[in-house]
Amino acid sequence: MISRSIFDNISPLDHRYSMRSEEFEEYSRYLSERAKIRYQSEVELALVKALAKNGICSEEVVKEVKQAISELSPEEVYAEEKKTRHNIRALVNCIQKRVSEDAKPYIHFTTTSFDIVDTANSLRYKETAEELIVPTLKKLEKVLMEIALREKDTVQVGRTHGQHAVPVTFGFAVAEYVSRFGNKIHAVEESAKNLRGKISGAVGAYNASHLFFDKPEEFEADVLAELGLKASTHSTQIVEPEYITDFVHSLISAFGVLASFSDDMRHLQRSEIGEVGEHFGKDQVGSSTMPHKRNPINYENVKSMWKAFMPHMVTVYQDQLSEHQRDLTNSASSRFIPEIIVGLLSSVNRLIRVCEKLVVDHENIKRNFEMNKEMIVAEPLYILLASYGHPDAHEAVRKLTLESQQSGETLRGLIQKSEELKPYWEKLTDKQMELLINPEKYIGIASQKAEKVVEYWSEKLDIELD
Amino acid sequence: MISRSIFDNISPLDHRYSMRSEEFEEYSRYLSERAKIRYQSEVELALVKALAKNGICSEEVVKEVKQAISELSPEEVYAEEKKTRHNIRALVNCIQKRVSEDAKPYIHFTTTSFDIVDTANSLRYKETAEELIVPTLKKLEKVLMEIALREKDTVQVGRTHGQHAVPVTFGFAVAEYVSRFGNKIHAVEESAKNLRGKISGAVGAYNASHLFFDKPEEFEADVLAELGLKASTHSTQIVEPEYITDFVHSLISAFGVLASFSDDMRHLQRSEIGEVGEHFGKDQVGSSTMPHKRNPINYENVKSMWKAFMPHMVTVYQDQLSEHQRDLTNSASSRFIPEIIVGLLSSVNRLIRVCEKLVVDHENIKRNFEMNKEMIVAEPLYILLASYGHPDAHEAVRKLTLESQQSGETLRGLIQKSEELKPYWEKLTDKQMELLINPEKYIGIASQKAEKVVEYWSEKLDIELD
Amino acid sequence: MISRSIFDNISPLDHRYSMRSEEFEEYSRYLSERAKIRYQSEVELALVKALAKNGICSEEVVKEVKQAISELSPEEVYAEEKKTRHNIRALVNCIQKRVSEDAKPYIHFTTTSFDIVDTANSLRYKETAEELIVPTLKKLEKVLMEIALREKDTVQVGRTHGQHAVPVTFGFAVAEYVSRFGNKIHAVEESAKNLRGKISGAVGAYNASHLFFDKPEEFEADVLAELGLKASTHSTQIVEPEYITDFVHSLISAFGVLASFSDDMRHLQRSEIGEVGEHFGKDQVGSSTMPHKRNPINYENVKSMWKAFMPHMVTVYQDQLSEHQRDLTNSASSRFIPEIIVGLLSSVNRLIRVCEKLVVDHENIKRNFEMNKEMIVAEPLYILLASYGHPDAHEAVRKLTLESQQSGETLRGLIQKSEELKPYWEKLTDKQMELLINPEKYIGIASQKAEKVVEYWSEKLDIELD
Amino acid sequence: MISRSIFDNISPLDHRYSMRSEEFEEYSRYLSERAKIRYQSEVELALVKALAKNGICSEEVVKEVKQAISELSPEEVYAEEKKTRHNIRALVNCIQKRVSEDAKPYIHFTTTSFDIVDTANSLRYKETAEELIVPTLKKLEKVLMEIALREKDTVQVGRTHGQHAVPVTFGFAVAEYVSRFGNKIHAVEESAKNLRGKISGAVGAYNASHLFFDKPEEFEADVLAELGLKASTHSTQIVEPEYITDFVHSLISAFGVLASFSDDMRHLQRSEIGEVGEHFGKDQVGSSTMPHKRNPINYENVKSMWKAFMPHMVTVYQDQLSEHQRDLTNSASSRFIPEIIVGLLSSVNRLIRVCEKLVVDHENIKRNFEMNKEMIVAEPLYILLASYGHPDAHEAVRKLTLESQQSGETLRGLIQKSEELKPYWEKLTDKQMELLINPEKYIGIASQKAEKVVEYWSEKLDIELD
Repeated sequence: MISRSIFDNISPLDHRYSMRSEEFEEYSRYLSERAKIRYQSEVELALVKALAKNGICSEEVVKEVKQAISELSPEEVYAEEKKTRHNIRALVNCIQKRVSEDAKPYIHFTTTSFDIVDTANSLRYKETAEELIVPTLKKLEKVLMEIALREKDTVQVGRTHGQHAVPVTFGFAVAEYVSRFGNKIHAVEESAKNLRGKISGAVGAYNASHLFFDKPEEFEADVLAELGLKASTHSTQIVEPEYITDFVHSLISAFGVLASFSDDMRHLQRSEIGEVGEHFGKDQVGSSTMPHKRNPINYENVKSMWKAFMPHMVTVYQDQLSEHQRDLTNSASSRFIPEIIVGLLSSVNRLIRVCEKLVVDHENIKRNFEMNKEMIVAEPLYILLASYGHPDAHEAVRKLTLESQQSGETLRGLIQKSEELKPYWEKLTDKQMELLINPEKYIGIASQKAEKVVEYWSEKLDIELD
Repeated sequence: MISRSIFDNISPLDHRYSMRSEEFEEYSRYLSERAKIRYQSEVELALVKALAKNGICSEEVVKEVKQAISELSPEEVYAEEKKTRHNIRALVNCIQKRVSEDAKPYIHFTTTSFDIVDTANSLRYKETAEELIVPTLKKLEKVLMEIALREKDTVQVGRTHGQHAVPVTFGFAVAEYVSRFGNKIHAVEESAKNLRGKISGAVGAYNASHLFFDKPEEFEADVLAELGLKASTHSTQIVEPEYITDFVHSLISAFGVLASFSDDMRHLQRSEIGEVGEHFGKDQVGSSTMPHKRNPINYENVKSMWKAFMPHMVTVYQDQLSEHQRDLTNSASSRFIPEIIVGLLSSVNRLIRVCEKLVVDHENIKRNFEMNKEMIVAEPLYILLASYGHPDAHEAVRKLTLESQQSGETLRGLIQKSEELKPYWEKLTDKQMELLINPEKYIGIASQKAEKVVEYWSEKLDIELD
Repeated sequence: MISRSIFDNISPLDHRYSMRSEEFEEYSRYLSERAKIRYQSEVELALVKALAKNGICSEEVVKEVKQAISELSPEEVYAEEKKTRHNIRALVNCIQKRVSEDAKPYIHFTTTSFDIVDTANSLRYKETAEELIVPTLKKLEKVLMEIALREKDTVQVGRTHGQHAVPVTFGFAVAEYVSRFGNKIHAVEESAKNLRGKISGAVGAYNASHLFFDKPEEFEADVLAELGLKASTHSTQIVEPEYITDFVHSLISAFGVLASFSDDMRHLQRSEIGEVGEHFGKDQVGSSTMPHKRNPINYENVKSMWKAFMPHMVTVYQDQLSEHQRDLTNSASSRFIPEIIVGLLSSVNRLIRVCEKLVVDHENIKRNFEMNKEMIVAEPLYILLASYGHPDAHEAVRKLTLESQQSGETLRGLIQKSEELKPYWEKLTDKQMELLINPEKYIGIASQKAEKVVEYWSEKLDIELD
Repeated sequence: MISRSIFDNISPLDHRYSMRSEEFEEYSRYLSERAKIRYQSEVELALVKALAKNGICSEEVVKEVKQAISELSPEEVYAEEKKTRHNIRALVNCIQKRVSEDAKPYIHFTTTSFDIVDTANSLRYKETAEELIVPTLKKLEKVLMEIALREKDTVQVGRTHGQHAVPVTFGFAVAEYVSRFGNKIHAVEESAKNLRGKISGAVGAYNASHLFFDKPEEFEADVLAELGLKASTHSTQIVEPEYITDFVHSLISAFGVLASFSDDMRHLQRSEIGEVGEHFGKDQVGSSTMPHKRNPINYENVKSMWKAFMPHMVTVYQDQLSEHQRDLTNSASSRFIPEIIVGLLSSVNRLIRVCEKLVVDHENIKRNFEMNKEMIVAEPLYILLASYGHPDAHEAVRKLTLESQQSGETLRGLIQKSEELKPYWEKLTDKQMELLINPEKYIGIASQKAEKVVEYWSEKLDIELD
C-alpha cells in the first residue's frame, strides 16, 4: 500500500488538513518521509565532498554520489530496509549499489547512523525554518501589522477579566499580538539558526574518524560547512538534545501567542459583542441545523490545534533523557516533530486567510464602548482626585460607582452634588474635565503605541509594509 | 492530491509505521477519515430507522438511505464540503442527492451535526475497542501469560533501585505485567462499553425533536438502540466529554504499563546483564557502524511511542472545557484521538511479535544471581535473628554485610565466628539453615504467584491458554 | 526551622491558599507530613495486630505498639532519620524505642519499607476520599442542584461557538454540570475504594513472610483487613501503580468539569452579557486602579488552579514506569499528590462559597434572549418546512436569515411575503405557529430535563435535597 | 495559624525538602510570600523615586516610603487584605497608613496592580537568577568539570542502547553534561536578564500616566531603571507572557539535563555494572529490610523531582493565553513558579553534595570494558577493511562477529584464518594493527575533548577552576 487515498490515512494532517494541495505540497517538500531521506542523502554527499577536499577520495566519487542520490527514491530505500531492518544502512546500501567499486568504500565513511540522521534533521529543520516557517509567520505578522495600523484610532473598550475597563484602540489591541508574535518569530529564527550537526561517530569521541584524521573535529567542521551547519560543543552518538528542544519551544510558544489571539477574536465575535467577524462565503453553512449561525470556526480551529500540539512539548522534554552515549527511545518520538510544524503552519495559513478578510464592526465597537462610558471615568477621576490631594480617593470613587449603579446618575453628576468632592472637581483643568466628559479621549497613547510597535517589529524582522 | 505516495505523508503513522499493510488496513478500517464518514452514515441510517419505527417515515425511506450510504465515498462528501464548508451538511446533501424527494426531508431530521458526529465517534471507538483494540491487547496478554508460566521457576535476582535484592523468578516478574496489563485491558473494555451517544439537538434540550415527539428522550433511545449505544444523562450540543476522557485515560494508562515492561526488557538486555534478548534476523543490521551490536530496538521503540502519545492526554483534559452549550475548540483536537489508538496498537503488535520470540538466557540469569548470592542471605538472616529475639538484628546484619564486603567471607561464615551471633545461629531449624545456605530457595511463593496471577486474569478476561 | 511563619513557605498552598484556617486544618489532618507518619504508624500497628491474631506475638505487643504510636511525633521521627537517612527505618526505630525488649522484634516484622509506605498511602487517600474529598464534592454538587432546580424555568439563550443558538433554561445549563460533576464524584468514590495495599515484602514474592507463614497471602489479607484494604493481584516492592493512577485521574477529570463550569460563569459575567454575578462584599475592591470593576475573580481562580494542577497527571503517568521490582524514581514525585488534592478541594470550597451566593440577573438573561429572538426561529422553521415536504428547507431558511439580517424584517414576515414559502406557512398547526411567534417557548424539555438530572444524581449519590 | 510546624504543611517543598535550613532560608529569602511582598514594595518605592525625579513629588516622599516599606510585614498586609480582598490595594493601604498625608497620594500613583505584580515578579526572578540560581548551577557545573578533568583518561566502554559500543573515557562522558548543562546555565542567565517590567496602567495604554506625562513611556523607563529592568515592547494589563515562558523553559530544560545525568549515574550503579557509587555514611541504612543494599537514592530523587516539575511547563504554556487586555486565570497558576525554582535548586544542591563525593570504581570500569574488548574491534576493523578497498566490509565483519560469538575466537584470529580477509589484514600499518590488538587505545580524541569542553565552558561561564 505504497500509494493510497488520503482518506485511508490516520492523521488528520494527512487527510482533512491536507486538502489544500498547494500548502500541503510545501509542507511535504520539507517534512515528509521523502524529504527526510533526501536530506539524509545530502549529508552523505557532504561527507564525500569533505573527503575529497581532504584528499581522501577523488572528485569523481563526489560526482558519482551526487548522481546516485539524485536518482534515489524512498520506495527503494524502504525496500532495502526490509532486508537490513536498519534505515541508514539501507540508504547506504542503495547509494553503494549505484556507484563504482572504487567509490563504494567512501560512502558513509567513518560515520555512524546518527551522524547522518541528526545532521540531516538539523539541516532540514533549519531550511524549513528559513524557507517555509519564518516566511509564513512573517506573512501573518504583516497582516496583523496592517490591521494594527488601519485600526489604530478605533476606540474600543479595554477589557480585563471580561469586564469593561478603560479604553484602548482596536489597533492597539492587535499591536499586542504584533509584538508577541514578532518576538517569537525572532526566536524561531534564532533557534533554527542554532541547530547543530555532528560527524563524531558512534559514541561521539571521533573514534573512527581519528583513524584517518589527526584533527577529526576539523574534518567534522568541513562536512558541516558544506551544509551550512556547525557542530555542537560536545556530542555522543547524537547531537546534544537541547538545540532541538529550544527550537520546538520557540514553535510551541509562538503557537501559544496565536491561540491567545484566536481566543480574543472568538470572544469579540460573541453575539452580544459582535466587534469582529469572519467573512463568510455566500454558500457557506454555519450550522447544519441552525441556518442563522455564523460561527468563529477558524479561530476555534486554531485554538483547537494549539491544544492538540502544545502538549507535544512534553515529549520533547522527555527526549532530553538518553542513557549513556544514547539509547534509541527518542527515535520514534522525534519522528513526530514534523507534525508540530505542520500543525503550526496550517494554523498560521488559516489565520492569514481569515485575518486578511477580518471584518471590524465599528458600530458595535462603539455601542459596546458607550455601554459603560460613564463608569470608565472612575479611573481618571480617582487618580485626579488623588493628585489634588484627596486622602482616600480610590475608596471615595469606589463608593461613588456603587451609588451611580443604583441611581443611574453619572459619576460627574454625583461628584458635583457631593459636598466632600465638589471642591476637588472645581480644581480640575479644562483639559482634565474634558476627558471626564468625553471618555473616548481617555485612551492614553494607544494610537501612537500601535504605530510604534509596528514600526519596531517591521524593522527588526525586516518586514516591508506596502 | 486525493491519492498519494505514503512517503509524501507527514505523520509517521501514515508512512513509516504504516508499512505493515495488514495491520495498517485494520487500523484504517476503523480509524481513517473514510471510516469516520462511514460511521456517521450509520448514525444517519439509525435515525431514519427510528423515525420509521415511530411511524414518522416509511420503511421505504430506510431502504433508500441504506442504499445511499452504501454508495457514498469520502471523495464525494469532501467535494460537497468544498461548497458548504460544513462537513455534516455535506454528508447530508450527499445522502439527499441519492434518495427520492419523499425521503429527503427525513435525512438528518431534527438533529444537529454533533448528534451525528459525537454518536458516530462513540460508536466507532466502541466498535474499535471491541473488535480491534481489546482483541489485540488480549493477544499480547496471552503471550505474556505464556512466558510467565514457562519461566515461573526460573530463579532470577530481584532488583530494586537497580541493585540486587532478594530473588524472584522470571515468570513472577512477567506476571507483574500480566496483572497490570490485565487490569488495564479490563478498564479499556469497560470504558469503551460506557461511551455514549446523543440525539438531543443543537443545545441538548431536544428543542427540535420535541416538535414531533412528546417524549423525545425515548426517540433518542430508539436511535441509539439501533447502534447499541445509550445516551448520557445530560447533553448539550455534545455528549458530556468525560466518557471519552475516561476511555482515552484507559488507553494511555495501558500504554504506560507497556512502557514500563519495555524499560525492564531493555535493561535486561544490557551487555552486563544479558538476561533476555530480541531474536535477530540473520540479515538484520544492529548498527550502521558497529557490526557487533544487537540493540533492543523494539523495546526502545515502544518506550518512544509512549513518550510520543502519553502527553496527548493533556489535550483530552483540555477538551473537557467547552463554553456554554459548546464551543468548537475541541473539534480539530479530538480528530487526533485515532492517532493515540494507532500508536498504542502498533506498539502492542510490535510487542506481540517480539515477545513471541523472546529469548531468555538462563545462563546469564543464573550468573547474575550468583554474583550476590551470599549477600541475599542478609534479609532472611536479619529476620530470623529478630524472630529469635535479637534486639537489634537489622543493625547487626548491616554491619556484617559491610564486614563481608571487605573481607570477602560469607555472612554465615562470619556469624559462626561472632561470639554475639553464634548462639542465634545455633537455634535455627534445619529448613531455615538450608535456606541460608541455598539462597536460590529464598524465592517466597514467586512460582505459585505467577501461576495464580495468570489463572486469575485468564478467567477474568476470558483468555484461553493453549 | 521546624516551626515557621507561613509567609516563609514556598508553596502557595502553604501560605496564601492556607489562610482559611478551618479548611486548611482539615486538609492538613489528612495530607500533611504529620498525617503521613500517622498513617504509616497505623500500618505498623495493623501488622502486629495480625501477628497477634496469627499467634506470632501476644496481644500485649499490640497494646504496647498502640501506646507507642499514640505518642510519636514527626519531629522525633525526622530527628531519627537524620541518623539512619531512611525514613521508615527511622519510624521503626522510634517505635522500638518505646516498647519492651519482647515486643521489639515484632515491629515491622518481615515487611519492607514500601509495604508500609504504599499501604499507608492507599489508606490515607481512601480515608481522605471518604471523609473529606467526596463529602466536599457532594456539598458543591448539592449547591449546583439547588441552582438547577431554582432556575429550571429561566429561559436563556443557548450558546454554541459563543453565538446565540436556540433557547435552553439556566437551570438546564447548570444541570449539565450536576450531571458531569456527579459522574466524576462517583468515579472518585469508586477509584478510592479500589486503592490497594501490600504486605508482600522487598520484591513482592513474600520471601520473608513465607519464612513464617505457609500461606503468606492470607497473612497479608489479615493485615490489610485491619485497615479496610485489599491487596492488589500482584505486587513487587510496591503496589501496582495503576490504582493510584486511576484515582488521580478521577480527581483531575473532576477538576476539569469545574474548570469548564467556571469558564461558563466567567463569560456570563462579561460586561456585555451580565447574566450572573459573584456577590461582592461591601468593602471588597475589584481593581486597585479601576474602582468600578467587579471581576469574576473566584471563577478565574478555579480555572487557574486547574491549569496549575491538571498537568500533574503527566507526573503520575510517568510514575507508572518503575524498573524491575521497582526503582525509587517515583518516591519524591508521588509525595506531591497531596498538592493535587488540596488544589482541588480549595477550588471546590471556593465554588461552594461563591455558588451559594450566585446572583442571577433575570433581566439581563431576558434582554440577551430578546436580542436574537427572531433568528432563533430559524431552526424550528427549517425543520417544520422540511417536515411539510420542502425539498431544500435548510438552504431556503439560510437565505431567509441573510435577507432578514439585511432588511431587519422578521423571518415569519418574510415567509408570508415569499410566494414559494407561503404555502408551507399555511399548513402549520396553531401550536407550531405559536412557537414561531413566541420563541421563548422553543425550549424543548429543558425544564423537565433539569429536574430529571437532579433527581437521578441525588439518588445515585445519595444527596438529600432540602 | 500564621505560624506552624512544617509537618503540618502540604507541599513537600515546605516540609520534607525544607529540612536543610541553610538552603531553605536562601530559597525562602527570594521565593516565599514574604519575599514577594518585599519585591512588590520595592516597585512601589521605585515608583515614587521616579515621581520625585520627574518633579511630581518631593524627595521627602521617597524617604517616607523607604522607611514605611522597611517596616512592613506580610502579616500586616494579609490582615488588610482580609478587608479589601485585593492584595495590592492592601499593600498600598499599609504603606499609606505609614506615611504623611502629603505623601499618601503618590503611593501607587497612576499604576494598576499588575504594574506592581508583574514588575515585582520580573525583578525577583531576575535577582533570584543572578544571586541564587545561576551561582548554584555554576557550583554544580564546576564539580562536573572537575570530575571530567580528573577522569579524562579513564577508559570506559561507550554504551549505546545499553549495549557496549566503542570506548570513551569517563571524563568524556561527564564532559557531555558539562557541555549540555553549561549551555543551559547560559540560557538561564540570558532569559533572566531579559525579564521585563511594565508601568503602563490598567490596559497598557498608559491611560492614567498620560494624564501627567506627555511621554509616559519615558516615565515607565525611569521607574524600571530604578530596578534594573526594561519594559516589554508592548504590554496590556500585564507584561507579555513570553519573557517568563522563556525563562521557565530555560529552567525546565536545564532540569532535563540533570535528569539525564542522574539516569546515567543510576545505571552505572547497577549491581552488574558498579562503575560509580554514592558515598554512604557509616550509619546510613540502604533498605529497611535488606541490610546489604546501597541504593542510588540521590540520583533517583533528582529524576523523580524532574518528573514532578517538568510538566509544570504545560501550565506556563497555558498561561500564555489571556483574554483581551488580560483575564486573571494566570494569577493563581503563576504563583506556583517559585515551586519550580525550588524543585530545581534542591536537586542541584543534592547533586553538588553527591557529586563532590562521587566514587568511581576503576576496577569495575576496567572489568566491564574487558568484557567485550574483542568485539569493540569490529568497528575499526570494518572501517579499515573498507578503506583498503573491501567492497562490503560492514557485512563481512558483521558475519565475523556472529562467528566469533559462536566459536569464542577473537576477530583478529578469525580474520587471519580467512582466505578472503587475510590479504587486507596484511596491508594494515603497525599503528593500525596495534589499535586492533589494544582496543583500549581506540578512544578517538575522548581525552582531549573532555579538556576542551571544560575549557570552553569555564571561559564562557566565567567559572574558575582550582
